[in-house]
Amino acid sequence: MTTVQERSLPYDVFSKVCPSRGTLEHVTGRWGALTLGALHEGSFRFNELRRRVDGVSEKMLSQTLHALERDGLVHREAQATNPPRVDYELTPLGHEVAERLLALIRSLEGHMDEVLHARRRYDEKRAG
Amino acid sequence: MTTVQERSLPYDVFSKVCPSRGTLEHVTGRWGALTLGALHEGSFRFNELRRRVDGVSEKMLSQTLHALERDGLVHREAQATNPPRVDYELTPLGHEVAERLLALIRSLEGHMDEVLHARRRYDEKRAG
Repeated sequence: MTTVQERSLPYDVFSKVCPSRGTLEHVTGRWGALTLGALHEGSFRFNELRRRVDGVSEKMLSQTLHALERDGLVHREAQATNPPRVDYELTPLGHEVAERLLALIRSLEGHMDEVLHARRRYDEKRAG
Repeated sequence: MTTVQERSLPYDVFSKVCPSRGTLEHVTGRWGALTLGALHEGSFRFNELRRRVDGVSEKMLSQTLHALERDGLVHREAQATNPPRVDYELTPLGHEVAERLLALIRSLEGHMDEVLHARRRYDEKRAG
């Protein structure tokens, strides 16, 4: 019964027309994943976030934040100060998604010795 | 033999020079995520996998599988039949990573009503 319910979920990332595929890409894209991971640590101002997500350009971070805000994963809080202060933080949904993402990231980081060993083996086989 | 660079720990995807960032991208990239998710269901031949990962081109699936094989997440089994038969399946490490990824995918699929609602609110606010 549980299986039937799970299988009849209307959204399916394996279908190219399903809107969940776009959201998966916002969440797991190069900068989306790191931005969500960083915001899991707390709220950040734009430039703080840019330093934390090493290598991101201003333009890409801005686009990434807009996509995550539009999907309801990030909340943008603008204060009418001079200069204006803008903070970004996760919504409750964003927090849940970031938890899953960080579990994946930590698993990968924890297995990188194994991954690098596999790469060496693969490259040696190709070279030999 | 292990070089100093390879021994530098810990791995941190937030650092742009860390090799774990590349692996995160192979795993979570548009086609990497769906390929791992599909292979979690069992072993697939190339064309079966191409049908399952709706929308992927032959070239992109081939590149994706090579990157995942090189990282030690996917095992490629070629049989010397005529025509040659090639099967792809997850390694134990690939299985672990795919589990985490599927937890993320299922969470997103399960919250897509909320995501689409957030998108409508965002677009209305922008339009208004």
